Amino acid sequence: MKVIVLGASGYTGAELCNLLSRHPSMQLACAYVSENSNDSGKALSQLYPQFPGLDGVTLQPFSLADVHEMDGVSLAFLATPHEFSHDVAPALLDAGIRVADLSGAFRLKDAATFARCYGFNHLQREELALAEYGLVDFYADKITRASLVAVPGCYPTASLLALKPLAALLDTAVRPVINAISGVSGAGRKAALNTSFCEVGVQAYGVLGHRHQPEISAWLGQDVLFTPHLGTFKRGILATISVRLREEVNIADIQHAYQQAYVNSPLVRVSHGQMPRLDDVVNTPRCHIGWQFDPHSGYLVVSSAIDNLLKGAAAQALQNANLMLGLEKDCGL
Amino acid sequence: MKVIVLGASGYTGAELCNLLSRHPSMQLACAYVSENSNDSGKALSQLYPQFPGLDGVTLQPFSLADVHEMDGVSLAFLATPHEFSHDVAPALLDAGIRVADLSGAFRLKDAATFARCYGFNHLQREELALAEYGLVDFYADKITRASLVAVPGCYPTASLLALKPLAALLDTAVRPVINAISGVSGAGRKAALNTSFCEVGVQAYGVLGHRHQPEISAWLGQDVLFTPHLGTFKRGILATISVRLREEVNIADIQHAYQQAYVNSPLVRVSHGQMPRLDDVVNTPRCHIGWQFDPHSGYLVVSSAIDNLLKGAAAQALQNANLMLGLEKDCGL
Amino acid sequence: MKVIVLGASGYTGAELCNLLSRHPSMQLACAYVSENSNDSGKALSQLYPQFPGLDGVTLQPFSLADVHEMDGVSLAFLATPHEFSHDVAPALLDAGIRVADLSGAFRLKDAATFARCYGFNHLQREELALAEYGLVDFYADKITRASLVAVPGCYPTASLLALKPLAALLDTAVRPVINAISGVSGAGRKAALNTSFCEVGVQAYGVLGHRHQPEISAWLGQDVLFTPHLGTFKRGILATISVRLREEVNIADIQHAYQQAYVNSPLVRVSHGQMPRLDDVVNTPRCHIGWQFDPHSGYLVVSSAIDNLLKGAAAQALQNANLMLGLEKDCGL
Amino acid sequence: MKVIVLGASGYTGAELCNLLSRHPSMQLACAYVSENSNDSGKALSQLYPQFPGLDGVTLQPFSLADVHEMDGVSLAFLATPHEFSHDVAPALLDAGIRVADLSGAFRLKDAATFARCYGFNHLQREELALAEYGLVDFYADKITRASLVAVPGCYPTASLLALKPLAALLDTAVRPVINAISGVSGAGRKAALNTSFCEVGVQAYGVLGHRHQPEISAWLGQDVLFTPHLGTFKRGILATISVRLREEVNIADIQHAYQQAYVNSPLVRVSHGQMPRLDDVVNTPRCHIGWQFDPHSGYLVVSSAIDNLLKGAAAQALQNANLMLGLEKDCGL
Repeated sequence: MKVIVLGASGYTGAELCNLLSRHPSMQLACAYVSENSNDSGKALSQLYPQFPGLDGVTLQPFSLADVHEMDGVSLAFLATPHEFSHDVAPALLDAGIRVADLSGAFRLKDAATFARCYGFNHLQREELALAEYGLVDFYADKITRASLVAVPGCYPTASLLALKPLAALLDTAVRPVINAISGVSGAGRKAALNTSFCEVGVQAYGVLGHRHQPEISAWLGQDVLFTPHLGTFKRGILATISVRLREEVNIADIQHAYQQAYVNSPLVRVSHGQMPRLDDVVNTPRCHIGWQFDPHSGYLVVSSAIDNLLKGAAAQALQNANLMLGLEKDCGL
Repeated sequence: MKVIVLGASGYTGAELCNLLSRHPSMQLACAYVSENSNDSGKALSQLYPQFPGLDGVTLQPFSLADVHEMDGVSLAFLATPHEFSHDVAPALLDAGIRVADLSGAFRLKDAATFARCYGFNHLQREELALAEYGLVDFYADKITRASLVAVPGCYPTASLLALKPLAALLDTAVRPVINAISGVSGAGRKAALNTSFCEVGVQAYGVLGHRHQPEISAWLGQDVLFTPHLGTFKRGILATISVRLREEVNIADIQHAYQQAYVNSPLVRVSHGQMPRLDDVVNTPRCHIGWQFDPHSGYLVVSSAIDNLLKGAAAQALQNANLMLGLEKDCGL
Repeated sequence: MKVIVLGASGYTGAELCNLLSRHPSMQLACAYVSENSNDSGKALSQLYPQFPGLDGVTLQPFSLADVHEMDGVSLAFLATPHEFSHDVAPALLDAGIRVADLSGAFRLKDAATFARCYGFNHLQREELALAEYGLVDFYADKITRASLVAVPGCYPTASLLALKPLAALLDTAVRPVINAISGVSGAGRKAALNTSFCEVGVQAYGVLGHRHQPEISAWLGQDVLFTPHLGTFKRGILATISVRLREEVNIADIQHAYQQAYVNSPLVRVSHGQMPRLDDVVNTPRCHIGWQFDPHSGYLVVSSAIDNLLKGAAAQALQNANLMLGLEKDCGL
Repeated sequence: MKVIVLGASGYTGAELCNLLSRHPSMQLACAYVSENSNDSGKALSQLYPQFPGLDGVTLQPFSLADVHEMDGVSLAFLATPHEFSHDVAPALLDAGIRVADLSGAFRLKDAATFARCYGFNHLQREELALAEYGLVDFYADKITRASLVAVPGCYPTASLLALKPLAALLDTAVRPVINAISGVSGAGRKAALNTSFCEVGVQAYGVLGHRHQPEISAWLGQDVLFTPHLGTFKRGILATISVRLREEVNIADIQHAYQQAYVNSPLVRVSHGQMPRLDDVVNTPRCHIGWQFDPHSGYLVVSSAIDNLLKGAAAQALQNANLMLGLEKDCGL
């Protein structure tokens, strides 16, 4: 099955191309960059010498006109800016190409929240309505039938994998508090002073205003308080979450909830007591979750670790594509 | 004024000796290690080449018998294990030597909580009762008159400097949630697998059971939820705290509270909106605080950064000693 | 084909087990630790949560008596201390088990040099004589027929891959100067003050006396000057080497030499001009080499990057085993 | 004594301003940025919150016309691009202002070498001739009388402090080989892809063509082979140097040479056998040197560590200014 990647020169795009180069059933038909990119015409392995599988992949400039000549392309991955995904997704869908969008363009159902958080007016209301949220460990059925999937953000992935199994157990009077720390690759591949090596220090950012807060709240079905931090490392997200559970909840309930949730998700590992170490999931498609519960106070602390570029982006995108194309969820991972 | 340091070979002890080597009014009379330490007899600068001021300081083995021959020593810094501080402080006090204890031995007033968190029975109840808590920016008057000061823990220092000014504004129905990340030096100078270079990864630890949680709760006067994390860096603590404020509280109240609290603390800097970056306080005695408030939800997020070995240990110990010896709080910093 | 790993709980042993868990033709029959190890009986994935393929592998205590009950075991990997390899290899060979030894016990042919560098007297002179040096990209034929292979050290691997193709071009009057920097994992998995997180700083060590210097000199056939450094990172070695070439040598000669050397080594990449970046080879079995030549002075600088635990240990060991067992050199990598 | 800093918003300019804020005899009259800088009008502490002493310093736009109104300014520090220093130094000298230039504009006496290495034609031949090379530990007398000093580059400082004492002992038939690794701050404060956090990996650069090679060769009086590397840390340079000494040289000769060289340089520390650790000099104005000698082969390896922004730039600039203004060399450090 032929697939394409738009935005292949960025960190998540390149990770996707690398995963695809080893996938048993998908074939990367073309790796696109934006029409005027300086990287156009370069071999992807020139930008990413760490990926020898990308030696044969040359970056092509994308133009909308190309969409109608993509014979036999089953699916397009959009590792592109929000506005670009917003603009190009309908044309791809019209051409019969399914879309796994890694941007934020189709993650929120509410257009008003979208406008506030993303700063532009959403004009693709029809696609917004039909898009499925690609949290593969929870919405596999819907994703299987979807033509357009919004791959979750990196922080929402880490947070929701820890929180969603507990949704029915939460004391809704107390807002879950999510503190997360991310590697710098989350900011993308670009020259910017604030992500230059000497300027990066551990620091909270986007406090009380990060666009992943409404995404988490929407898909958890409960308002949360989310504070992201920049970390002095390249890859990975660790999210530590404090919640209060309803009075009658006990440890067995929690164990049961997590077990049920991930019975079909071998790449998600949950441990009672053993808190995940970020390094153990970096460069892998896995999510490690650890939790601890204090029955006296009803507070539970759960920590969730993923690689932001893999489970938080490219690997989950591939899981979505697997489902959309009728393959096993974890095929090629 | 002559002072001594017990436990001078550890990270905080050495930082203290370094600060003392530049202090205008205190003189390091002797730097002690435990009686059987391998470091006994070594120059402190051999262990810490980064401190050239320690060239002339030779580590001496400490024995209790020495206490009675310490003529003219005004104050002893204890950068020693909890049990050791517990055992030796009374003898020093008896000999007329004031004590600034950097261990946890005298930080909690409640002996039962102490036994639970520190794992041994507190036998110095009298000293426990008279010890003052050395959070210098809040208890300067009491410290000035104290013979024994319990220098606060590193996490409690970062957390309480952010939280105490808000104490009267808190919605006490919602527990403040403190997430903190610390450099590895917080674990002390020792050979251990879990702090060996290759084993360190960002990870929560001591979840729902860290001994700094009751310390913070006790001195804030409000139960908190505290989750520490190990970070992949050497020094510094960043604590990010989420609280809900009482309904009527507004931004001006918060600004006023912080201004009042730190009018005499030039080394504590508070900013509305600008979140602190850990690197900006590392190797300094300062605390940088930044906060953001959402009036709609009543939630406030405040982030606090210190160097765990300085404001979180040696520098605050020196501030305490300054006050105890009648000097300016920030003298020599 | 059944293989065993001795010393499976160390960094290189665990990497080997991980590689074996994915190998198409080898099966890890048993993962051993030393007889009195605390890790005996543990699942290997408990020590290494980053390797999910090791979930089913339980560490077994090794005793020499076991050797005679290892029916059907074709090959043993020794990821063990030098003395241990020295002691146990003959017994394994006697039992008809081929040996790939990752220690230094059989790397040097000269017993006197061995005694000086490794500090013990070599008693297995016969095995020392028959051992082949497992630099797979140069000695494939000999390795294929060998019963005992000494897998090269990490620094020698990086250095020799850069230098050996140039051997005939060197101006032997000027000693090649090798400066290398290694991740801390090179020191192994253990609790030690000098590899504890806070103590590690970039620093030369073993200056003019490191045991890898005679190993490199011996297998290059030319005395070298080798200075290793500790780096503040976990994995990887970058070796930068300065040599003077014979007067008549030109750029085409160099290109030809490298091309010839690695025509059958797709995992070794050589570039004229593009210097390797350490991160590009970490977590891979590859070696990236870059060189620059100044025809006026005759000096050539070549830089070589490997992952010390993979090409510098486990992956090269596996390549050796592949050859010894009649498989393709890069099978399973 | 009033001094000014041009280029105050860069890393070295800001370090200089910080040092000046604590200097007992110099007063920072003005901190300039280029005329069109976005940072103009900002407080320097806004860019550098780690320097509280810079709270009162506001960045001013510089124009050449200002030079004639700088009444009472004794000295100007140029922490500016090479071309800018080249252009502006004569005007400052004409106005009677002494100049300590941290750029490369006046470091090489030979204009042809300069053109080749710096890519522009040197038009200030007179100033080039009268400029003194500001290696303070060797040229104090000349610097004291100079009106224009070229502060040495960071790599040359580390390299020459290790090599110059040995100059008379070198076997000149073998070129000294210098391998150095530098923190990313050496690239300056700017947005660039190659110094963005995720792109930095340990890597050689400028191989056989770095402009510091002729600078080192010129001031050592001997051709050298210099290979710089980028390191994954913020600050500091470690240079490890291999040389062959003349046949008759022994250990005592080497000890004597270093002792003589640094008898008046308490900030330079030399050790026989103890190799310097980079972290021990970072954030200090010191240089730590360690060496090891093999009498059999005649090879000596010496390693030299400095903070590239301090001894490698701002602190040495201040030492130069101290001498030029008749103060003690290490005043204010």
